[in-house]
Amino acid sequence: MIKVGVVGGAGYTAGELLRILANHSQVELSFVQSSSNAGRPIHAVHKDLIGDVEGDFSAELDLEVDVIFICSGHGKTQEFLSSNDLPSSVKIIDLSNDFRLKAEGNDFVYGLPELNLEAIKAAKHLANPGCFATAIQLGILPLASHGVLTEDVHVNAVTGSTGAGQQPGRTTHYSLRNNNVSIYKAFNHQHLGEINQSVKQLQSDFEHDIKFLPVRGNFAKGIFASLYTTVSATEEEIVNWYKEFYKDAAFVYVLDEAPDMKQVINTNKCLIHVEKHGDTVLVTSVIDNLIKGASGQAVQNMNLMFGLDQKEGLRLKSSGF
Amino acid sequence: MIKVGVVGGAGYTAGELLRILANHSQVELSFVQSSSNAGRPIHAVHKDLIGDVEGDFSAELDLEVDVIFICSGHGKTQEFLSSNDLPSSVKIIDLSNDFRLKAEGNDFVYGLPELNLEAIKAAKHLANPGCFATAIQLGILPLASHGVLTEDVHVNAVTGSTGAGQQPGRTTHYSLRNNNVSIYKAFNHQHLGEINQSVKQLQSDFEHDIKFLPVRGNFAKGIFASLYTTVSATEEEIVNWYKEFYKDAAFVYVLDEAPDMKQVINTNKCLIHVEKHGDTVLVTSVIDNLIKGASGQAVQNMNLMFGLDQKEGLRLKSSGF
Amino acid sequence: MIKVGVVGGAGYTAGELLRILANHSQVELSFVQSSSNAGRPIHAVHKDLIGDVEGDFSAELDLEVDVIFICSGHGKTQEFLSSNDLPSSVKIIDLSNDFRLKAEGNDFVYGLPELNLEAIKAAKHLANPGCFATAIQLGILPLASHGVLTEDVHVNAVTGSTGAGQQPGRTTHYSLRNNNVSIYKAFNHQHLGEINQSVKQLQSDFEHDIKFLPVRGNFAKGIFASLYTTVSATEEEIVNWYKEFYKDAAFVYVLDEAPDMKQVINTNKCLIHVEKHGDTVLVTSVIDNLIKGASGQAVQNMNLMFGLDQKEGLRLKSSGF
Amino acid sequence: MIKVGVVGGAGYTAGELLRILANHSQVELSFVQSSSNAGRPIHAVHKDLIGDVEGDFSAELDLEVDVIFICSGHGKTQEFLSSNDLPSSVKIIDLSNDFRLKAEGNDFVYGLPELNLEAIKAAKHLANPGCFATAIQLGILPLASHGVLTEDVHVNAVTGSTGAGQQPGRTTHYSLRNNNVSIYKAFNHQHLGEINQSVKQLQSDFEHDIKFLPVRGNFAKGIFASLYTTVSATEEEIVNWYKEFYKDAAFVYVLDEAPDMKQVINTNKCLIHVEKHGDTVLVTSVIDNLIKGASGQAVQNMNLMFGLDQKEGLRLKSSGF
Repeated sequence: MIKVGVVGGAGYTAGELLRILANHSQVELSFVQSSSNAGRPIHAVHKDLIGDVEGDFSAELDLEVDVIFICSGHGKTQEFLSSNDLPSSVKIIDLSNDFRLKAEGNDFVYGLPELNLEAIKAAKHLANPGCFATAIQLGILPLASHGVLTEDVHVNAVTGSTGAGQQPGRTTHYSLRNNNVSIYKAFNHQHLGEINQSVKQLQSDFEHDIKFLPVRGNFAKGIFASLYTTVSATEEEIVNWYKEFYKDAAFVYVLDEAPDMKQVINTNKCLIHVEKHGDTVLVTSVIDNLIKGASGQAVQNMNLMFGLDQKEGLRLKSSGF
Repeated sequence: MIKVGVVGGAGYTAGELLRILANHSQVELSFVQSSSNAGRPIHAVHKDLIGDVEGDFSAELDLEVDVIFICSGHGKTQEFLSSNDLPSSVKIIDLSNDFRLKAEGNDFVYGLPELNLEAIKAAKHLANPGCFATAIQLGILPLASHGVLTEDVHVNAVTGSTGAGQQPGRTTHYSLRNNNVSIYKAFNHQHLGEINQSVKQLQSDFEHDIKFLPVRGNFAKGIFASLYTTVSATEEEIVNWYKEFYKDAAFVYVLDEAPDMKQVINTNKCLIHVEKHGDTVLVTSVIDNLIKGASGQAVQNMNLMFGLDQKEGLRLKSSGF
Repeated sequence: MIKVGVVGGAGYTAGELLRILANHSQVELSFVQSSSNAGRPIHAVHKDLIGDVEGDFSAELDLEVDVIFICSGHGKTQEFLSSNDLPSSVKIIDLSNDFRLKAEGNDFVYGLPELNLEAIKAAKHLANPGCFATAIQLGILPLASHGVLTEDVHVNAVTGSTGAGQQPGRTTHYSLRNNNVSIYKAFNHQHLGEINQSVKQLQSDFEHDIKFLPVRGNFAKGIFASLYTTVSATEEEIVNWYKEFYKDAAFVYVLDEAPDMKQVINTNKCLIHVEKHGDTVLVTSVIDNLIKGASGQAVQNMNLMFGLDQKEGLRLKSSGF
Repeated sequence: MIKVGVVGGAGYTAGELLRILANHSQVELSFVQSSSNAGRPIHAVHKDLIGDVEGDFSAELDLEVDVIFICSGHGKTQEFLSSNDLPSSVKIIDLSNDFRLKAEGNDFVYGLPELNLEAIKAAKHLANPGCFATAIQLGILPLASHGVLTEDVHVNAVTGSTGAGQQPGRTTHYSLRNNNVSIYKAFNHQHLGEINQSVKQLQSDFEHDIKFLPVRGNFAKGIFASLYTTVSATEEEIVNWYKEFYKDAAFVYVLDEAPDMKQVINTNKCLIHVEKHGDTVLVTSVIDNLIKGASGQAVQNMNLMFGLDQKEGLRLKSSGF
C-alpha cells in the first residue's frame, strides 16, 4: 500500500483527490493537513465524503509517507518546501503552478502522461499540469509532434466555477454567474507558459502565438476547449496523427463526432474531435477540470510513479447527466 | 413629478428599484445614497443600468424630496431614522422588516395593497412586505377572509439566490448552489410574524400554525410557494372566493391551470392557482422575489401613496424565458 | 462472474446501469437489448461510455444469463414477460412499477434493502422501487417501525429532469425548465401505492394520508425530499430510532446537520437528517434519482441476490459539485 | 395608432414581440395568426402574457393593418408572400432569413439600424437581421467602416437555448443541455452571409474569412460574442472609432470594461467592449438573442419605419439577474 499525505486538504482539488483516493485499492491515507480546519472531521468540509473517508484534518505532517500531494494553491508550494524538510524518500506531487516551468534547479517533471510518460515513471518530484493547460495541450500536441504548427493557434475554452476555487467572490456568486458568460485574462492566462513549453518540446521551431480566450461558464465542473489553426494535411491524415499519438493513452479518446462537454464529467477522460474546414483544422477537447484537469491526473501520475496501472482508482462512473 | 431618494442604494433591492424607476413617468430621481459606493457612478455597481440611470451614488441625503425608499437591510432602518431628522413632509417606504409588525408607536402601514389598499393610500410611512410573506399571504388571505382557516396551513416555498443578498457566501457560491436544493430556517422563518399578523387581521380567531419550509432553489430570481390546508367548501366556491378577493387587484391573477414560476419573472405579478383534492385545498402562488416581493411592490405602494395608477412604471416586460 | 442481460437498453436507467456495471468486478455483460437501437454501438447512445463499454445493442435476448435487468418503462415489463419465455434459472430485476404492489400471483420481492433484506437475498424476481418512493420511504420507515405515524405525513420532493425520461417534451425543454419550478400530480403520484404498502408493512394500523407534492426542479439529477408529521418522542429518541434502523444499512447515513442535495449526486447513498420543532418532526432525505432511486439500487439488489457485498460496484465517486 | 398584425404567432420570436408590443404606446394589435393554435387564447401559449394581451390566435389575416410582422420561421416567408396577396399599403417586417441577402428583385431593406438607418426609415419591406448576425456585426462594423479588416476575423459566440426555437429536441433537452457546452455548424453558420454582406457594404475590399464558431450555452436567453483580428491602430484610436460609429445609436453602448452577458438580458441593448493586446484587437459584444437579436430590433425597425422615437416601447427593464 502506498502511504499518502495531502497538504492543503480543505480546497476543491484536495476534496476531489480524496474522493478518488477513497476507492483506490493501493492507497492508504496517512494524513490530510489543513491549517484552517485542523481537528475537524474531513467530511465536515467535504461533506459528500461521509461514509467514505474517516478521520480529521491534521495540523501536522506525518513524514512516514511515500508520497505527498500538495494542494495548497499557487505560490504556496515553494513556501511549503522551504519551511518543511521532507525526507528524500518522499515523493511529491504538486498541484500548483510553482514548478511547471523548466528552470535552473527545478527537478520537477511536468506531469502530462501523454507527453512525458517515461519521465513521469521515474520522477520523484512532479508538477501536475493546469486544467486549461491539460485540455489545450491534449488538443494541440499531436499537431506539434508533426511539426505543422506554422500559424497562430486560436483557442477558446470555457471553464466551470470550481476552477475559481472555494473562496466565495463576485464572479462565483450564484446570482451573477447563473445564466451568464464572461471573459477573463484574455490572451494572457498563466497557463500559456506551460502550454508553449510543451508545444516547443515537440516542435522546437514553433514561434507563433497561442491566442487563448478563457471564458467563465455557468456550470460547476468541466472545460470545453476549441482550437483551430491552419494545416495543409487532410482531415484523414490529421485524425490518424491523433489516433497514433494517443494509441497508448489511458484516458484520451479521439471521437468520430464532436463531443458534448458533459460526456467527461466526473471522469479522468479527455475526448477529442478533429475536423477540417478548408485549410483550417478545428479540434475540440473536453475534460473535467477537477479530474483530468487536476486531481485525477495527479492520481494517474502517482500510479505511474509507483508502477501501477494508470487506470487504478480512476475507473470512475461518469455523471452521465 | 415625484422627487425620490434612495437610501442603501448598492444592494439588490435598490438596484431593482432603480431599474423600475428609470422608466417611471412620474418620478425624478433626486439621490441614491450609498456609504460604501459614494462618488462612484450608479451603473458602476448596477452595471445593466448603463444608459438608463446617470449620476453617482452620494454620501449625503437630499431632504428636498417627496419620498425616500430605504433599502439598507434589516435592522438598519431604525438606526437610519434615529440618526437622521427627516422633515415630516417626506414619505418613507421601508423595504426592511423593521416596521412590519404592529407595535406601540409604530405608525408604518403594512404595504400589501391587496390587504390594506385604503390605508396605504393615506400612509405617510410604509413598511413594504417581505418576499416570502408576499407570496404566502396572497396565497392564503382569501381563505382567511372567509374565516375557514381551521387547521394548520402547510407551506413550502422555494426562493432564488438574490433573496440572500449580494454579499457572497457559502450558500450563494455558484459551485455549491448550482444543481442543489437545501432547506433553511425550517418552521422558523422571520416572515411568519407578518404573515400571521395579516391572517389574523382577516380571521381574528386563527390559532393554528403556518408550517413553512423555506427552500433554497438553484435560480437567481423568483419564489414558488405551495400551500395547503383542509377546507370543506368546494373547489368552485373557493376559486370564486379568490377571484372575488382579487377582482380589483392590479397584479394578481387567478389561473385555470397550475403556474410555472417563470411566468412572472421580471414582472410585478402574482399568479395563483387553486385546486381541491378531497378535503385539501392546494394553492400555488408565484412571484418575482425582487419585484412583487420587494421593489416592484414598493413602487406599487408609492403609486398608491401619491394617487397614481397602481400600474404606473410597472407594466414590465416579462423575461419570458 | 454473473452474466447479465439488459432489456430496454437505450433509456436513462439503462445508461446509468451500464455506467455502474462497467466497473463491477463480478459482472460480465452478455447483452444489451434495444429494439430502437439494435445494431448500433452502445456508446453511440450513451456517449459517455466510450472506452468503458464495448459492443452493440442487440435485437435479441441471450437466455444464457444469470440475471436480466428490465429497463423498458412502466407497463412494458408485463408485456415483455408475456412474450418471452425466460428459463426459470434467470433472475429478473425489474425497474418498472409493474410488480411493486403485492397482488395475487405476483412473486416479485419489493427491492428496498433497508426494509426487505432477507427476502431480497432469497428473491428470484425483484421489483426495484421508484425514485421518489425510495427517498420518501427511507425518510419515513423508521417512524413506522416504531408505530408512531398517527397523523398525516406531509411530503414535498423535488426531482431532476432525468426523472422524466429521455423523450424530449414540453416540461423537459431547456428554455422552459431552466430557472423554473412547477408541481405535478399533486397528492396523486403513482409512487404513493408502494410507499403506503411499505409503511403498513411496518405499522399495520397506519390509516392517515401521505400528502405528497412532487416538484420539478431545474437540475438533471437528484431528489430532495422533506417530510414532517407530529410525533411526541424527543428529537434524541427519534434520531436514535433512525440510527438503529439504519445501523446495518450499506448506503444510508443519518447526519447531524441538514444535507445539501448535491452531497449524494452520483452515489448510491441516501442522507437523512432529523430535527424536532415543537411536536413536529422534520426529516430530510436526499438521493440521486437514477442511482439509489433506480439503477444503483438495482445493482445493490443484484449483489444481495447473488450473495455479494452490497457495496460491490457501488463505491462511486461523488460528483462533489 | 399603428395597426399591427403578427403571422406565425405561436413561436418564441412572436411571443417576445407580443411582450414588447403589449406596452408600446403607439401600437394596436389587430391580429395574431397561428395555424396551429387558431381559436386559442394568446396567453394559452405565451402564458406569461396573462393580463397583458387579450384575444385569441386567428386562422385568418386582417389586411386592414399598417404593418405585418412575419415570425414563421426560415423559408416560410417566401411561401407566405406567394400565397397571400397583401395590399401594397401594408408594410412587412420579416424576422426570417428569407430576404436578408441582396438579390435581383429583393426589395427588402436589411434592418440593422446602426448600418442602414435612412434606408430603414424609408423601407416598406424589411428583413430583420439574425441574432448572431446582430451581435457580430455590431462588434465588427466600426472596424470595417475604417477599412482596417485586412486579416481573418475570429469569432466565438455562445447562444441560449431559445435560439433553437420551441420545438423540443435532443439539443434542447434539459437533461443534456444543463451544465453542458457544445459547438455546431462550425465555420459554416447561415448568418455568415449577411455578416459578410454588411462588412463589404462598409469595406468593399474585405476578402478575408470570418471564422465563426457558434456555441450552445446552458442558458435560455442571450448571446455572448468575442471577436478578434489584427489591427495596427492603437486601443485609444479604435475605441474612439467605436464611440463615433455608435454616437447616435439608440441601444449600443461602448463600455470601459468587459461586459457580463447578463447585463443586457431582457433589453434591446448591445454592449461592446474593445481592448488591444499587442497587434490584436479584441471586441466583446453581448445582446439578448430574442430582443436586439430578433423581436426588439424588429420593433426598433418598426419605430423607424413609422417615424417614431427608436426607443418607443423598448425602454425595457433589464432582468438584472
